[in-house]
Amino acid sequence: MNDVVTLAHGSGGKQTAELIDTVFKAHFSNPEFTADDAALLSVGGANLAFTTDGFIVSPPEFPGGNIGKLSICGTVNDLACMGAKPLYMTCAFVLEEGFPLAKVEAYAAAMAETAAEAGVRIVAGDTKVAGKGQVDGLFITTTGIGLATEGVHLSGALARPGDAVIVSGDIGRHGCTILLARSQFGIDADVTSDCAPLWGTVQSMLETTKDIHVIRDATRGGVGTVLHEIAAQSGVGIRLDGAAIPVAPSVRGVCGMLGLEPLYLACEGRLVIFAPKDKAPAIVETLRQGKYSGEAAIIGEVTAERPGRVVVRTEIGAETLLPPPGGELLPRIC
Amino acid sequence: MNDVVTLAHGSGGKQTAELIDTVFKAHFSNPEFTADDAALLSVGGANLAFTTDGFIVSPPEFPGGNIGKLSICGTVNDLACMGAKPLYMTCAFVLEEGFPLAKVEAYAAAMAETAAEAGVRIVAGDTKVAGKGQVDGLFITTTGIGLATEGVHLSGALARPGDAVIVSGDIGRHGCTILLARSQFGIDADVTSDCAPLWGTVQSMLETTKDIHVIRDATRGGVGTVLHEIAAQSGVGIRLDGAAIPVAPSVRGVCGMLGLEPLYLACEGRLVIFAPKDKAPAIVETLRQGKYSGEAAIIGEVTAERPGRVVVRTEIGAETLLPPPGGELLPRIC
Repeated sequence: MNDVVTLAHGSGGKQTAELIDTVFKAHFSNPEFTADDAALLSVGGANLAFTTDGFIVSPPEFPGGNIGKLSICGTVNDLACMGAKPLYMTCAFVLEEGFPLAKVEAYAAAMAETAAEAGVRIVAGDTKVAGKGQVDGLFITTTGIGLATEGVHLSGALARPGDAVIVSGDIGRHGCTILLARSQFGIDADVTSDCAPLWGTVQSMLETTKDIHVIRDATRGGVGTVLHEIAAQSGVGIRLDGAAIPVAPSVRGVCGMLGLEPLYLACEGRLVIFAPKDKAPAIVETLRQGKYSGEAAIIGEVTAERPGRVVVRTEIGAETLLPPPGGELLPRIC
Repeated sequence: MNDVVTLAHGSGGKQTAELIDTVFKAHFSNPEFTADDAALLSVGGANLAFTTDGFIVSPPEFPGGNIGKLSICGTVNDLACMGAKPLYMTCAFVLEEGFPLAKVEAYAAAMAETAAEAGVRIVAGDTKVAGKGQVDGLFITTTGIGLATEGVHLSGALARPGDAVIVSGDIGRHGCTILLARSQFGIDADVTSDCAPLWGTVQSMLETTKDIHVIRDATRGGVGTVLHEIAAQSGVGIRLDGAAIPVAPSVRGVCGMLGLEPLYLACEGRLVIFAPKDKAPAIVETLRQGKYSGEAAIIGEVTAERPGRVVVRTEIGAETLLPPPGGELLPRIC
């Protein structure tokens, strides 16, 4: 391990996992400490999910959303991915001295609107102010409580050979949007973040079938990082059909110009779902009727071979290993 | 309202309240949104308390603790002040690129130790990294779930004329410690932060009597700010006996040199308690046997007169109004 924090420690990939393992897990070890999107707890007879997420996205406003909307979606989606109905949230702000109050208010308005759509109530908050130059604009940390759905057992460790791999829509939009919003590349493309609250999406799937093994939202690190995590957690291989992976033409164009792999671009409104193959068509059909999942598609399958690896079959039939995530593609993506 | 964020918005005093009222409450309004230290929720049949707190203290290490210990104490104490047994916590880190990992680990170790003492489990976390100069070192946000104690009803709105006002120990230590740790004043005094997890303290009081109206931890803004908040929330007056307020000689000395009022210096391990006068001696006796409350004392009483005001009776019998909190005494105190 390097002896100082690097941007790669925030990538959501290998180095982040290393930091969590060596520093946090080593100290915080307990039976409820989670490797999934949210911890599952039994409190006073209630089965809850509990999760937290910090948001430092730069710039704080982008096509399709802002840091306020993102801060609700991120936590709502982490609860949803455990099959838990989001109920209550807290939010903690760190504001930079001199930051415009009108912007704080605009982000708060976006938070309220997104929370209302997700059916979640913001019940407590905290506000700290740091001096000019001690924090870049504003950071928001949200934490959520959700109520677990009976009969649903979801975990990154539950993928099984024979499962289909589904994505709920076209991938890489959020990462591509932030990249363009920083305008350092001088590329002008019409890309909008996929940032959206997904409890409704998950709920509709669970009403179709409870026989789903894994649901993950592909945020930092993108779908590729999530797939590698699940392959490792479940001890299985994953084979993707490259031609089946939905990518918007504009995103594909930007990736082509910059030599980026869409599988490693962040999403903020896309789910990766693992379910038995015979249930997959009904799940995809349900998803395609949803507001945020019209482009849902089966993109691959789980194999017993090559555990821990993700293989992509190209259109001409060749198979290539998807390299494991590493380094920092784009800091401050969420 | 100013049109940009000022340090005073982070003071925990009048301007913070204004920001919360005009920006956050206006948007987040719902029946569970709390004006107390934690929201009280009924989830799946369980009665929970839920609270969040951001920690940006500068410097992150100080006599008596560090930002890690503080980040657990702050949230544990907010739950305790609602009479809720702290059960589970999440923590979210924002780290600056280049920050020493050994320090991150030391803070994590302090968090684990303090969590163990408080009987709370850290079950989920998040790590983000911002580029050099985009965050000052590290910020930690913790969020906690507690289980409400049956038969206990605590709120800043429940103070009643005839209540005694109790503090659980000598005041102003944390604020004084941070002030000296910044060493800009060149004062050398032996002051240690009171930073401590107080669920055990609250539990012992509640075992003595459940007839307690208000418990608050006096953090940012100190005891003086808390008293003004309670006077306003409950619509009562408060009369303090100046001579009865416990202040360590070293803290009193520093305050004398710098012209500071100890009532407005932050504490991180002190409770302000309102309970009927006839219950107060037993509560103080219990507190004095506790690890963190040996200096507990009755410092005043609640009056029907002068609602919203806090009056201090000096040793020679004169009465002066304690000015309401305002401005920013010391930024980044917690």
